[in-house]
Amino acid sequence: MKKLTVIFLGLAMVGSMAIAAAAMFTKPEEAISYRKATMTLIGHHFSRMGGVVKGEAEYAPAAVGRDADLVVVFSKLPWEAFMTAGSDKGDTRMKAEALQNSEDFEAAAKAMEDETAKLAEILETGDQEAFKAQFGAAAQSCKSCHSRFRS
Amino acid sequence: MKKLTVIFLGLAMVGSMAIAAAAMFTKPEEAISYRKATMTLIGHHFSRMGGVVKGEAEYAPAAVGRDADLVVVFSKLPWEAFMTAGSDKGDTRMKAEALQNSEDFEAAAKAMEDETAKLAEILETGDQEAFKAQFGAAAQSCKSCHSRFRS
Repeated sequence: MKKLTVIFLGLAMVGSMAIAAAAMFTKPEEAISYRKATMTLIGHHFSRMGGVVKGEAEYAPAAVGRDADLVVVFSKLPWEAFMTAGSDKGDTRMKAEALQNSEDFEAAAKAMEDETAKLAEILETGDQEAFKAQFGAAAQSCKSCHSRFRS
Repeated sequence: MKKLTVIFLGLAMVGSMAIAAAAMFTKPEEAISYRKATMTLIGHHFSRMGGVVKGEAEYAPAAVGRDADLVVVFSKLPWEAFMTAGSDKGDTRMKAEALQNSEDFEAAAKAMEDETAKLAEILETGDQEAFKAQFGAAAQSCKSCHSRFRS
């Protein structure tokens, strides 16, 4: 197999801007497939960083930085899909509680966004111990949300 | 349903850097699930722009720019997954030809990356007619690859 190049994703600025949202999803099944796809990508890149934290893979600054930057991008995407009416039914593990307690869900989502953003920032410093600690905090933000809102 | 905020993704710099690639996928099924997830997200955001081009949705600069920026990010992700040995079998529509003629596949992938990058650049100018024309070129790059390498 040919050696493929890995793209380095330089996110010089990832800002957030509150704008009126045109509904992204008109059908619950579309929302479910979108958020599952996002979670698949988050899971993949997060697991790669996890391998580094566990010592199963070498700490390669460009690769781990790219994983973190991608997770930061993905972390902003799936929440509206989760909050789509009717999307607690069908091919999903989301509990109805997520829609019923949307403020709690959104707070949990925000915590994950914030912890992964911190992870990407720490990686820029090159401090591997701080990276490992913050990876744990980010992983905890995933688990907290899953344990409450995922069946 | 609560109005959610939409994140504006500011990609001030998306550069590419060729670095030695640690294999991202050890199992074909993992590669298949990763590339399908990426294509789901590309399809979603590309279709949203398509709705604007067809006049089904309003041209909202921030929303359409975000869609294009996300497609640019996603456009760089799935190719290594497609080039994973053995991933022409299983739950996939990729033809074996993609692996057999990997140079052609990679050229088709590169064309899609380039056309979507141009699309995002054009959106920064605010020229809606140029956007529509370039959307067509980008869509054609998708179709060309699908018609040859997807069953």
